[in-house]
Order: sequence, then structure tokens, then C-alpha cells
Amino acid sequence: MSQTNVSHTNVDRSSALHPPFRIIDLIRKKRDGGTLSAAEIGYIVDAYTKGAVPDYQVAAWLMAVVLRGMTREELAALTHSMLYSGEVLDLSFLPAPKVDKHSTGGVGDKTSLVLAPVVAAGGLYVPMISGRGLGHTGGTLDKLESIPGFRVGLSVDEFHRVLKACGASMIGQTEKIAPADRKLYALRDATGTVESPNLICASIMSKKLAEGADVLVLDVKTGSGAFMKKEQDAIHLAELMVETGERMGKKMVALITNMDQPLGHMVGNAMEVEECIEVLHGGGPEDLKELCLHLGAWMFFLGGAAKTVAEGKQLAQEMISSGRAFDSFRQMVELHGGDISVIDDPSRLPSADHHVDVKSPSSGFVTSINCELIGTACVVLGGGREKKEDTVDHSVGTVIRKKIGDKVAASEPLCTIHGHSDVQVARAKLLLEESYKISAEPPAHKPPLIHRVIYQGESHKGER
Amino acid sequence: MSQTNVSHTNVDRSSALHPPFRIIDLIRKKRDGGTLSAAEIGYIVDAYTKGAVPDYQVAAWLMAVVLRGMTREELAALTHSMLYSGEVLDLSFLPAPKVDKHSTGGVGDKTSLVLAPVVAAGGLYVPMISGRGLGHTGGTLDKLESIPGFRVGLSVDEFHRVLKACGASMIGQTEKIAPADRKLYALRDATGTVESPNLICASIMSKKLAEGADVLVLDVKTGSGAFMKKEQDAIHLAELMVETGERMGKKMVALITNMDQPLGHMVGNAMEVEECIEVLHGGGPEDLKELCLHLGAWMFFLGGAAKTVAEGKQLAQEMISSGRAFDSFRQMVELHGGDISVIDDPSRLPSADHHVDVKSPSSGFVTSINCELIGTACVVLGGGREKKEDTVDHSVGTVIRKKIGDKVAASEPLCTIHGHSDVQVARAKLLLEESYKISAEPPAHKPPLIHRVIYQGESHKGER
Repeated sequence: MSQTNVSHTNVDRSSALHPPFRIIDLIRKKRDGGTLSAAEIGYIVDAYTKGAVPDYQVAAWLMAVVLRGMTREELAALTHSMLYSGEVLDLSFLPAPKVDKHSTGGVGDKTSLVLAPVVAAGGLYVPMISGRGLGHTGGTLDKLESIPGFRVGLSVDEFHRVLKACGASMIGQTEKIAPADRKLYALRDATGTVESPNLICASIMSKKLAEGADVLVLDVKTGSGAFMKKEQDAIHLAELMVETGERMGKKMVALITNMDQPLGHMVGNAMEVEECIEVLHGGGPEDLKELCLHLGAWMFFLGGAAKTVAEGKQLAQEMISSGRAFDSFRQMVELHGGDISVIDDPSRLPSADHHVDVKSPSSGFVTSINCELIGTACVVLGGGREKKEDTVDHSVGTVIRKKIGDKVAASEPLCTIHGHSDVQVARAKLLLEESYKISAEPPAHKPPLIHRVIYQGESHKGER
Repeated sequence: MSQTNVSHTNVDRSSALHPPFRIIDLIRKKRDGGTLSAAEIGYIVDAYTKGAVPDYQVAAWLMAVVLRGMTREELAALTHSMLYSGEVLDLSFLPAPKVDKHSTGGVGDKTSLVLAPVVAAGGLYVPMISGRGLGHTGGTLDKLESIPGFRVGLSVDEFHRVLKACGASMIGQTEKIAPADRKLYALRDATGTVESPNLICASIMSKKLAEGADVLVLDVKTGSGAFMKKEQDAIHLAELMVETGERMGKKMVALITNMDQPLGHMVGNAMEVEECIEVLHGGGPEDLKELCLHLGAWMFFLGGAAKTVAEGKQLAQEMISSGRAFDSFRQMVELHGGDISVIDDPSRLPSADHHVDVKSPSSGFVTSINCELIGTACVVLGGGREKKEDTVDHSVGTVIRKKIGDKVAASEPLCTIHGHSDVQVARAKLLLEESYKISAEPPAHKPPLIHRVIYQGESHKGER
């Protein structure tokens, strides 16, 4: 039959010119559960980025990776190849350690806006390349852009200048960073090959390592509003990312944190900026404040500004209490072209006039929240994106008034929608009503804020 | 993070127009080990054939099929969709059962040229759509084309006419038969997704069932010269094909036959035609004759021309002894435009003048033959194809003088190369020398000609 090939026969092919590898051989090797060398993986990434191998061959290889997995060595090689497919920033001219934090994304997850100024105020540099919201999760860039004038699209030179001047700068991914990831991600999105811990790790780490940071603190979310719904999956991804970063000479830690309900009270771009300003003034919701202090503690500890994590937490607290973190934030906003009058008076941030309460159908206790639906409600209001091309309304969102374990009376507001159009508000209301579960009995236990810390090859339960 | 999608949220999409399925959902379902419905599989095949879904999505799905497998229902649905992607011949106008044989391909595998006239002479119809050689295996069409003037590219009308006149016709696949298979096979070839029993079965059966035969006898080869090197793999493929054919209302049997050494003595297009003429005259090598009688026996039995397989074998033998099979062959060649003077005098077939013996390095016994290398030697001589586009030299080949178990003296010829160019002959010689293994002791056992018969859900050891 014709279903054969002669690749393994002794026919002499020396006369033909060949690339170092044949993609078909590498697909077959992974399909059969083999391990690819760093050179083989490098060839795939390089050839694909250059357009020398077609989408369909890489799609087959990606599916084989999803189903056969990768060794840690293969993952490191993939991350390395994707990282060096583009520009890697050199921030060695900065006189103190460069530290960053990355979150896998959640609802009301706004810690970056607090952490960058806190850690910069403490004497370290925070070069942060962030993303936009997609699906039910928000994105740091969208939040920043709710500050009138704030430019996230700085050039590398401008990024360097802002970092030097105030210690922190937050920008979007440039075209030059990890082009292999951009191309691979688009293909994965179309071929059902997104959901692979290895491919997710390589995608995140190749972008994050291009920033030139020495330290990376990972906030890996788990729960109903997270990408990784199961804690075990979050831990696995965190371990892959920590090990991959360490193999590349970075100081790494991962905190597995809860996303069974929104972080803080605000979900929506401008509303979240306002809440961050509260935290920087020493106020704000307890869970948000607490998580910022923990993440900041690790950034200070791994960046060498504190001898212990506990000392790091104290330092983070001091930066807030002293007002130095707020000053840093104000300066960073100014250097990014943002209108600092709205930082000084957050009531000037964009806002939506149409406020509608979502009321409890009965008295009792909040026992669970479908956090993804809360994020989706924000998308429905116009505050997020279903597709990359969608534009975002920064003013809309939801104020979360009741969280898991809270007691609630019948008809008492669970949350309040801030929107514009009646239709959007009505649709968001349906989602929010569906997201809350009220029972006569309180829940057996409230979700912990921090599930686990993964550091130096060990996984510690709780805050460590 | 951006690695999310909103496909499972409650956002209303009723305003958009949708195809019946989203390919991404079907890829994910198979990736996660799910079972696709006949409608879902039909959608993939149909949309891909029409160009409505891109190569890269189908490539990812194919790799998921390779690694996750398929149920028998899925396989039947895939075969059905591929079959009905094109024209299905209707031969109901012929007044007797239509029977065909399909081989999975081997070296020196020339039984079709004997069987078609034997079975036609016995009163059944043999509508045979055959393939060309690719890689180390030969193809029936190439063999037929070594007869000057023989046209394998008949129109459907001509095919009908030849069948009606002489009971057998052998043609190539038309553009109209199973276009889905043509497109899918090209993609599989480039994406490492050829080696899947399910996909191989669907590919073969969708083409074979398009012929309009009522009976299909499968010759599934196993051994060093076969696509399926391991008997277990051959049995698995055979079972899939038999069950799939039966689900589609066909009478099916599969013989698992040996391909650890070439069948007969001749390997090479014109040389194989000559050997078939010998068999049709009642001579020829024992193994080739025996296998033809067995396959013919099953064709007669399942086609209703014999009450038992043993009776079928007798009938096949009679067709040869009486000369009726040879007459049928001669008539078929004539109706296909072939020069019957070469059938009457095979020395007029194309031949190569340069004959070189490959001699035994020592005295002893032939204990094994790498049959794939023997096929590859024929390719090297110009008698086969590495790529589909290659042209074939019908005159070249190898005469196999010693087979497994044969006693051989030092320097006695193992085989004789018939070639043209010195360079090609020298390269073929290296391969042939490498293919023979000579030991002082005879092999423990000679390979059986027929390993197994798979019939009506049962697998019988030996000839049955």
C-alpha cells in the first residue's frame, strides 16, 4: 500500500541540501513519547517563527506535546528558544536588583498596581510587562489606561528612563518580545492546544524572562475565577514555572492563592484603580491588602532588601504607612503621562452612573461564588474583552458587597452593578444572581487567602 | 492571564451564524479522550474536504486521534464520511457477485495480476482499483504498465465495459473517488499521523468500498518487508478493516500473510509480470502459487461460486490448469489496450541487460532476509518511487535465488540484479548484501506463508 515512507532506508541523500532536522521526524519522536533535544526544540521554534515550517506541522507537534508531555529539560529548552526568539531586555545598568511579580489572572486581581510602587519605594526596581484582560479575567494594562493620559506603550528607552527615575514602570508587551510565543499562542488557540501546563509555562516564562528581572514572584490563582480551577493543577503549573525560572538563573517563588471569589471589593478597571489607591493610603479591603503585603514580602526577600520574608512584609507595610509607596505610584503615573489629578482625587476617574443592586433572594450565608461569572458580568457590561480586538469601557464594573461566609438578610444587596446601558446591566444582573449561592448554614470553612508557597523545590502549606 | 477563552460562559451568541459544530470543540473532545458522534466526524471530513476548516486544525485533530484512538463506531463513521466524500461506483448491472482483493503492500507481491483473471474465469466479477508503488513496496499499476500500451486510466464507462466483457478490470484511483482521503492522506503524510491503525483502515476502506464490490478479501502483510512489521499490529489492522467492511454490509475476510521475504522470485515490474504469466500457465514459484490459490479460494467462497473454501481452492486451481485464467488475463490486457504479443512471448517485456550476481560471503543457510532492503534496492535501481512524482523504470529488478532456510555455498549467487547504470547497480548490491543473513545452522523454523485468517469476528491460526 502507499502508506509507507523510505526515511529510514539506506538510500543516499547526501546530494540534497537539508536543514539540521526534519520536522516530520521530530513530530514522530514526540508522538511516540520520545524526548527531544534542546537543539531539536530550538529548530522547531526557530523554523516556525521564521515561517520555514507550516502551521499544520507545528499543530500536530503541539497536540503530541499536550498528550505526551515534556521533560523539565525539554520545557527549559522550549522556554529558552521562545525567549531568545526576540529581544531580551538588559537592565544591568540599574544599580539594584530587578524584581517582578506575575499573576496567572483572576477577577478583581489588582495587586500589581500596589506592588510596583511599594517595592520601588523600598529601593528595588520593578520592570513590569503586563497583559490585557481577555475572557473573564482583567488585565493590568486596561486598569492603568483608566487613568486619563496613562501610556502603556513606552519605547524601551522610555521604559529605561521611567525605571531609573522612579523605580517602577508598567508597560505592554512589545512586538519584539518573544515573537515565537505570539505566533505559537495564536496557533494553540485555534487547535485546542492551550490547555497544557508545559505550553502555558513556556508561554508565560518566555515573556516574563524577557523583562530582564532577577527575581520573579508568581501568584498562581486557583478557584472558580482562575484559569486553573483545581488546586492540584495550579501547584503543577507553579512548580513547572519555578523550576524553569531557576534553571535560567532567576530567583523564583510561587504563591498559590485563592480565586474562589474576587480579590477586594471592586471588579472593573477604574473602580479597581480607586481601590488600589485606598490600599496605598493604608486602607482598602483586608484580603487585597494582605495579599499585597505577602507578595511584596517575597519580592523584598528575594531581591535582597530584607533578610527574611517576615522582614520583607514589615518593609512593605512601612512603605505604605509612610506614604512613600503612594508617592512612587503618583510619580510613575506622571512619568507615564497620566493625569495625576485623578490619583489625588479618585472621584475624577471614569465612572458609570447607572447603579443597580443585586439583592439576596433569601436570608442566610454566602456559601459560594462562581467567580468566573462575576468576571463575565464585567465583560457583558463592556469592561472586558471577548475577543482581542474589543475595546474596553473603563468606567463600568461591580462592587462586591458580600463575600464567602458573610451573613446576608433577604433583599440585602450582594453586589452593585455600575453600568451604562439597561440591556447590559440586565444581562450582568442575571449572571451575578446566578453566581451567588446563599444557604441557611454558614460554609464549613472560608477559603484561605494563600493555599501554598512553592520555594526552592519545596511546597509549603499556608503562608510559610 | 490571556490563556483563557469564554466559550463556556453564558454570553449570548445567538445573533451570530454558526456551522453545526465548532471544530475547536471537536479537537478538544478527542484530545480529552472523548467519543465523537457520526455527525461530528462527518462535519470534520466534509468541512475539511470543502476547505472550510484549515489544515492546522485538522492536523491537531489527527494527532489527537493517533494518540487517543477511536471507537469502532467512530471508525465506521470516519470511513463512511470519507467514502461518501466522492463517487461510489454502482456495479449492480453486472449479473454476478463483484469480489475484490486488497493487499497492504509488500515486496514481490504480485497476486492481483493472477487473481483477477482466475476469479473472472470462475464466473465472478473483479472490479479492482489499485495503487502505485511508494517507498520499498511495489504497486499493481506500475506492474501493469510494464506491458506496452496497457492503460490503467480508464473512464468509469470504459471500466464498466471491460468488466462486462472479460469479468476483470484493473484501474487507478480516479480524482472522483474519496477526495477526502486524498486530502487527509497528504496532511497525514506531512504531520506524522500516518501510523494509526484507525486512520489507515479508514483510508484503505474508503477507497476500496468505492469500487462497488460485494466481497473484499484482505491480504494483510506482516514481516520485515511489510508496513506492519509486527504480527500483532497486522492482526489489529485486519480486525478493524474486517469489522468496518462488515458494518457497511460487505462480506469480508483477512488473511495475515508473511512478508519476511519477497513473494516468489521476482522483484521488479516487468519481471513480476513475467512470473505471473508463469503462474497462469501452471508453473511459477510454490509460495506465490499457493498464496494465489488461497486468496482465490476465499474470493470464490465469499462470492458464492464455491460452497467451501476448499472447493474454492479447487476451482482456482482448475481455472489455471484449464488455461481459462490465462485467456482471461490475455483478454483483459487486450481490452486495456495492452500489447498481447508480450503476454504470449514474455521475453518481449522490457528488460535490463546489466546482470550482476550478489554472492554469498560464506557457506551455510539463509536465516533471515531484510525484505524492506530488497524493496529499497529496487527503488535504487529506478524501479520504484521515493516520491509520488518519480517515474518508474519497468525493466529493472532483482531475481531472488535463495530464500529463508535455503542452503548456500560460499560465492553462490543469493540473488541477481537486473539494472542499467553501474552506479545504481553498485548501490543496490550494497543493500542486497546487507539484507541477507547467512549462518552455519539452518533457521529454527521457516516463516509460514499464512499466519492467520480473520473471518466473522474470529481469528484462526494458520490457513483455516
